[in-house]
Amino acid sequence: MDRRSFLKNSALGGTAAAAAGLAAPAYAQGKRTLTLVTTWGRGLAGVHDSAQYCADAITAMSDGQLTVDLKAAGELVGAFEVFDAVTAGQADLFHGVDYYFLSQHPALSFFSQVPFGMTFQEFNNWFDHDGGRELADELYSIFGLKSFPAGNTGPQSGGWYAKEMNAVEDFQGLRFRMPGQGGQVMGKLGASVQNLPGAEVYQALASGAIDGTEWIGPWADEKAGFQEITKFYYTGGFHEPGPNLNLNVNLEVYESLTPAQQSIIENAARASNLWTMSLFMANNSAALTRLQSSGVKLLSFSDAIWDAFGAASKEVVEGSLSDEIYKTCYDSYMASLASSASWASRSEGEFAAQRNRVMGL
Amino acid sequence: MDRRSFLKNSALGGTAAAAAGLAAPAYAQGKRTLTLVTTWGRGLAGVHDSAQYCADAITAMSDGQLTVDLKAAGELVGAFEVFDAVTAGQADLFHGVDYYFLSQHPALSFFSQVPFGMTFQEFNNWFDHDGGRELADELYSIFGLKSFPAGNTGPQSGGWYAKEMNAVEDFQGLRFRMPGQGGQVMGKLGASVQNLPGAEVYQALASGAIDGTEWIGPWADEKAGFQEITKFYYTGGFHEPGPNLNLNVNLEVYESLTPAQQSIIENAARASNLWTMSLFMANNSAALTRLQSSGVKLLSFSDAIWDAFGAASKEVVEGSLSDEIYKTCYDSYMASLASSASWASRSEGEFAAQRNRVMGL
Repeated sequence: MDRRSFLKNSALGGTAAAAAGLAAPAYAQGKRTLTLVTTWGRGLAGVHDSAQYCADAITAMSDGQLTVDLKAAGELVGAFEVFDAVTAGQADLFHGVDYYFLSQHPALSFFSQVPFGMTFQEFNNWFDHDGGRELADELYSIFGLKSFPAGNTGPQSGGWYAKEMNAVEDFQGLRFRMPGQGGQVMGKLGASVQNLPGAEVYQALASGAIDGTEWIGPWADEKAGFQEITKFYYTGGFHEPGPNLNLNVNLEVYESLTPAQQSIIENAARASNLWTMSLFMANNSAALTRLQSSGVKLLSFSDAIWDAFGAASKEVVEGSLSDEIYKTCYDSYMASLASSASWASRSEGEFAAQRNRVMGL
Repeated sequence: MDRRSFLKNSALGGTAAAAAGLAAPAYAQGKRTLTLVTTWGRGLAGVHDSAQYCADAITAMSDGQLTVDLKAAGELVGAFEVFDAVTAGQADLFHGVDYYFLSQHPALSFFSQVPFGMTFQEFNNWFDHDGGRELADELYSIFGLKSFPAGNTGPQSGGWYAKEMNAVEDFQGLRFRMPGQGGQVMGKLGASVQNLPGAEVYQALASGAIDGTEWIGPWADEKAGFQEITKFYYTGGFHEPGPNLNLNVNLEVYESLTPAQQSIIENAARASNLWTMSLFMANNSAALTRLQSSGVKLLSFSDAIWDAFGAASKEVVEGSLSDEIYKTCYDSYMASLASSASWASRSEGEFAAQRNRVMGL
């Protein structure tokens, strides 16, 4: 397959080419301020920290040539307006997670997260060394953007439930909070999926208006206080095993930067990517220990439930295969996942399982 | 524990303080060339690429202010002379793996690899967010160095054997090639450990002079050609589950750099860290598929053998606990490992195992 040509027949291809031609070399001289908008409130630990890391690293490394001015969600535009704002040039770049913008293109899911998809490491194997970047460059150019992986929350938890979930039938009629494609999967299992704003979730769970919720992971979940309401916590989850956070730069702005400045943005994003993943893993680990000490019961879904999650996820992920671009990304993503998963499970997976067993971790 | 003070009683502490006082601000002006020496031959795929990534990123981001001149092993100093060369100021920085230099200090093992120790992600959790960096800063300052994690090979394979290894007793008298602390562990199981130079391993295995060898992972092992000699390949290994590659900068040189240049080195190293890990994982994955197709039998050690590896690794790792600095690093490392391992196995570990089972990966 010639990856460079998958957009040949796309009606949108012309827009990309036009945007690419608008580079303004005049920008390359002198000091500039770049406006970074985000999909995160300033108080949202981890993900806001990741955006701030990018801003600070670009500012520090460019030694005064670039100053990144971070505007959190609502400070310049709303959380879900950042994609349009950067595409239109109202802001220079945004930090977010692109599954918020699947209405722009369903293939954006492969560059943020699909249910039952890649982990953090598998995603970065694909993006940097197995064809992901080339596909991203073409897809994002449709929207006049250049995208860099710039953070990850690590796996998101299976969630909090009012009781133990012992069979697939237990999901029938369950009132559960889970947004996005994961929620679609839960719906296929018969759940009544609720899309509550974050601020309302605690009260809904406490009042019994919902039977359960997923949130992020132990660090954020503990802050939200769900352990005060129920003690049944499923740690493993199918819906977001390694959501990639995106740093998306207006393509015209990006191409107007010097090679040094372009390298600074690329490396700031890549450094933030690992730093953020480690931040979540370290804080989740510490919070999990505290939750367990406070009496929370850590649970795992049965094989039968995982089978049902898998079958429903397959339906959701394959639902857009009639789109040519989506299918090209899907084929590349799934081939890379199969390759990465085999080595990962036979090396790190086997080692970690054996080490934890032997050492009692 | 006050991490900042663990060297108070160290006889070497004075050296560190003296080195720190030698900063030469005059360096901060104008363009500079930094000499980077490495422990890798220029043809050693993956690890040399990692060093080159660091050199290229620093050069590119500093926009002509810093030019990094990479001298591979043997081009300026030998592979095992790089530590002394940078400490002495003969070169400015080196890229290598610090378990080569345990004779300098046994605690360097925690910042490269201990048997049965941390994976890539667990190490970076500890280093960036759970106390590792602070300990590294103190330890390396003894030698007038500043150390940054800058790459990782991912888990190294269990190795190639002339026959299946079914019981702990099979290691008795086994002539096996494995250097370093892993080799010490194999020795405790009764193996006759051989420390052959890399260039001699293939011939030794082919002639029957040794009964088995570990090397790196599928990518490098396939290049070495071991699959031409034996088909018994243990993919999971206990000895190097995530060896950290170090970028170590002469501390006087580092402190003479501008804040922007210091940030460039830190972020270049962190970006290289993830990029290199992904490079190894992607290439190992592809090579594993080829090896399997060529008739290599992929094997896993039994629980009893893993138990024996674990017990012997514990003896080796705890062998230096009488050293105060070593013990401080050990305590921090083990506490962080226990915390990270629990969340990792309950989130990503459970997800990946279930996904691979459901999808047949």
